[in-house]
Amino acid sequence: MKQLSEMTSGELKEFYDAALKEYEACKAKGLDLNMARGKPSKAQLELSNELLTIIDPANCTMDGIDARNYGTLEGLPSCRKLFAEILDVDVEEVFVGGSASLNLMYDVIAKAFTHGLLHSEKPWAKLDKVKFLCPVPGYDRHFTVCQSFGIEMINVPMTENGPDMDAVEELVKDKDVKGMWCVPKYSNPEGIVYGMDTIRRIASLRPAAPDFLLMWDNAYCIHEFDGEYLPFPDILTLCRENGNADMVYEFASTSKITFPGAGVACFATSRANMDYMKKLLNAEIISYDKLNQLRHVLFLKDKAGVIEHMKKHAAIMKPKFDAVITSLDENIAPLGIASYNRPKGGYFVSLDVMDGCAKRVHALMKEAGVVMTGPGATFPYGKDPNDRNLRIAPSFPTKEELEQAMQVLCACIKLAAAEKLLAK
Amino acid sequence: MKQLSEMTSGELKEFYDAALKEYEACKAKGLDLNMARGKPSKAQLELSNELLTIIDPANCTMDGIDARNYGTLEGLPSCRKLFAEILDVDVEEVFVGGSASLNLMYDVIAKAFTHGLLHSEKPWAKLDKVKFLCPVPGYDRHFTVCQSFGIEMINVPMTENGPDMDAVEELVKDKDVKGMWCVPKYSNPEGIVYGMDTIRRIASLRPAAPDFLLMWDNAYCIHEFDGEYLPFPDILTLCRENGNADMVYEFASTSKITFPGAGVACFATSRANMDYMKKLLNAEIISYDKLNQLRHVLFLKDKAGVIEHMKKHAAIMKPKFDAVITSLDENIAPLGIASYNRPKGGYFVSLDVMDGCAKRVHALMKEAGVVMTGPGATFPYGKDPNDRNLRIAPSFPTKEELEQAMQVLCACIKLAAAEKLLAK
Repeated sequence: MKQLSEMTSGELKEFYDAALKEYEACKAKGLDLNMARGKPSKAQLELSNELLTIIDPANCTMDGIDARNYGTLEGLPSCRKLFAEILDVDVEEVFVGGSASLNLMYDVIAKAFTHGLLHSEKPWAKLDKVKFLCPVPGYDRHFTVCQSFGIEMINVPMTENGPDMDAVEELVKDKDVKGMWCVPKYSNPEGIVYGMDTIRRIASLRPAAPDFLLMWDNAYCIHEFDGEYLPFPDILTLCRENGNADMVYEFASTSKITFPGAGVACFATSRANMDYMKKLLNAEIISYDKLNQLRHVLFLKDKAGVIEHMKKHAAIMKPKFDAVITSLDENIAPLGIASYNRPKGGYFVSLDVMDGCAKRVHALMKEAGVVMTGPGATFPYGKDPNDRNLRIAPSFPTKEELEQAMQVLCACIKLAAAEKLLAK
Repeated sequence: MKQLSEMTSGELKEFYDAALKEYEACKAKGLDLNMARGKPSKAQLELSNELLTIIDPANCTMDGIDARNYGTLEGLPSCRKLFAEILDVDVEEVFVGGSASLNLMYDVIAKAFTHGLLHSEKPWAKLDKVKFLCPVPGYDRHFTVCQSFGIEMINVPMTENGPDMDAVEELVKDKDVKGMWCVPKYSNPEGIVYGMDTIRRIASLRPAAPDFLLMWDNAYCIHEFDGEYLPFPDILTLCRENGNADMVYEFASTSKITFPGAGVACFATSRANMDYMKKLLNAEIISYDKLNQLRHVLFLKDKAGVIEHMKKHAAIMKPKFDAVITSLDENIAPLGIASYNRPKGGYFVSLDVMDGCAKRVHALMKEAGVVMTGPGATFPYGKDPNDRNLRIAPSFPTKEELEQAMQVLCACIKLAAAEKLLAK
C-alpha cells in the first residue's frame, strides 16, 4: 500500500472511490454497536458473580464490626488494608467510600470550594479564578468536574512518559493554578505509564499555590491485560519525601475489577489530610456501605487475589485490544493517515487521525451505526485543538462486534482522509 | 409520691439522700451501656438478612438494565417506583442514590453553595449570610450540616403539631433565610407527627428568598412501632398546589427498614428540580449502586411489603419504648420534675428534665456507665437554651439493658433535680 501523502491526485481519487464504496457497504449492514465508554463486558461482569452471595448471613462481622449497622466512617479496616496493599500505602492513609471513585474525586474538589483544603487560605469559592492543569488527551469526566465548578482548564501535552514536565513546572508558578489531573498508569485514553523521572518531578513540584491539589487517579493501577503486573511507585511517599506530603490525593476503585456499578472506591492521602477530610466528611455521611466492602474483602482477599482475578479480565480483554491493533496495523498504518498507541493495560486505544478529521470520522461512524466517544471528549471543553483524537473503547462489545466496528472505523478513517486531501 | 416542688426543705433533703444512695447503687453495678444513637439492634438487623443473598447471580437484570454495570444515574426504575409508592409521589419525581439520605441532603445543600439551586440568583457561597430555620429540639446531624457550611441557624419552637408556624411565617420574610429542616413524621427527637394545618401552612409559605429550600426529611415515614401505618400527605403535591413546586426536596431511606449501614436512600422533588439536579449530579457520579437497589426491590417488593416488614421491627421496638415510658411514668412523673412524649413511631423519646439539669443528668449517667446523646445535641450549636432536653434512643440496647439504663436515668433525674432545688 502507498501512503496517501504520496499518491497522485488520480490515485487519491481512486482511493476515495474505493473508500466510499467500502463505507457504503459497511453502512448497508445496519449495525448498532457501541464502543463509546470504558464499560466492562457481560463476560467480565460474570467473573465476579460470586460477590453477590459471598456474605454468610450468619456472619456479617469483620474486624469486630457488624457491617450491617452504622459506623466506621473511614471504612472497614480489612477493606482499607486491601486497598493499602494494592496502592502500596499505609492502612491509615486509606479512606474507603462508596461505589465510585469519581464521587470521591468530585467531593474533594467540592470541599476545596466550600471549605478549602488543609493548606488553603480560603475556600476556592471565594477566589476569582481557579485553574487546573489537564494533560491532554485525558479523561472527559475529569474535565466535566472542572467545568461544573467553573475551573479554568489548561492543556498540558502528554509525552510518552507522561505530562510534559517542563510545561507543568512553568505553569505551577501561577498561584491560580490549584491542581492537576493525572492518570499515572495506563492513562486514559493513551494507555501511557508515567516514567519514574516524570513521577519524581511531579512529586517535587514547587507550586505557588500552598493548597495545590494533585489528583492522582490511579484508575488502572492493577489493570494489565498484556503481560505481568507492573509495580508502580507510591506517590504519597514520594510527595512526602519531597516536602509535599499534603499535596496529593490518590484514587482507586474496584469498578473495573468487580462490578462497575457496584464496586468499592477509595482515596489515599497523608494523615494530616485524612484528619482534615474526615472532619468534613463526618458532616456528610455516617458511614459508607460496609457490607459491600465486606463482600470485596471476602471475594478479592488480598493484592495477590486481585492480581489473580485481573488475569481473568486480561484473558477477555487482550483479544479485543489485539483485534483493534491488528485492524489498524493492517488497514491504516501503511497509509500514513493515523497514529495510535499499543497499550498493555487500561481500557482504551487512543487514535489520532489526520488533523481536522476526528469529527468527520465520528459522524461517519454514527451514520453507519457505531457510537464512539464524542470527538473532542478527550480534551477540556470538548475542544480538540487539532480535531484529530478519537478514543476507542474495546471492552464492551463482543470480539465479533468489535471486529465489525473496526472494519467500519478503518473505512471511515480512509474516507475522511481522502476527503480532506482531495479538498486541499 | 409528692411533687418535689411541694416538698419542705427537710423532705427535699431526705429525698436527695435517697436519690444519692440509689445513684451510688447504680454506679456500683459498673454498667457499660449505650443509648446514644438511633441505631437499630442486632435483632432488627437479622430481619433483613435475606437481602444478603437475594440476588440470583444468573439474573442481575431488572427493568432491562444489568444492575452490575455502569449507568442509570437516577436509579433502577423499580427502586424508584418502590420509593414513589412509599412517599406517594410520581416515579419521575424520585432519584435513588447511595446508602445514606444524609449524604443526599448534604449534597443538595453543597450544590446550593457551589452552584445555586434552580431559582438561586447566585451560588450561596457568594452570599454574605445564609440562614436556616431549625425547629427545636431537632436532629443533630441536620445542624452539623448547617454548621459545616457556616449557615446561621435560627431556633423555631416545636408545638405538638410541628414547628410554630406563626414564627416560621414571620422569619421567612427575611431574604437571608434560605431554608428549613423538617422531620414531618415522628420528628427527631419528639416523635411528633406534623398536623395537616401545619403542613399546609408550610407548603404555602411565601419566603422572601426565591430559592428557599424546604428540607423534608421523611426519615420515619413508615416507621410506626405502635398501631397501624399512618398515611401522610404528599408534600410535593401540596407545594405544587400552592405555587411552590420547586421549594421542596423530600428525603427517605431504608436505613431503618433494612440495614442502617447499607440501605438505599432517595430524594423526591419536582421534575424541574430533578432535571436541574441531575445535570449537576452527572458531573459527580456515573451511577449509584444499582445492585443494592435491586436487592431492596427483590426483598421489600412494594409498599405493602415494607409495611409488613416494619411490623417485625415494631414487635422488637414497642417493648423497648414501653419500658422507657413505664419507667418514667412510675418513677418520675409523680415527682413533677420532667416531661416527655409518648411516640407511636420513630426512634426516640424526648425528655425534658428540670431547667438547667440536662448536662448534669448526662454527666451523672456517664459516670454510671451509660452513654446518652450529648446534652444540647438536639439544638443548633449544641446549645440548649434551657439545658433541659435529653434524647433517649431505646433501639440499640436489649430490653434488659434498657431497663437497667432507665433505672440509672431515673436515679440521675431525681438526683439532679434535688441538687438543683436544694441549691436554690
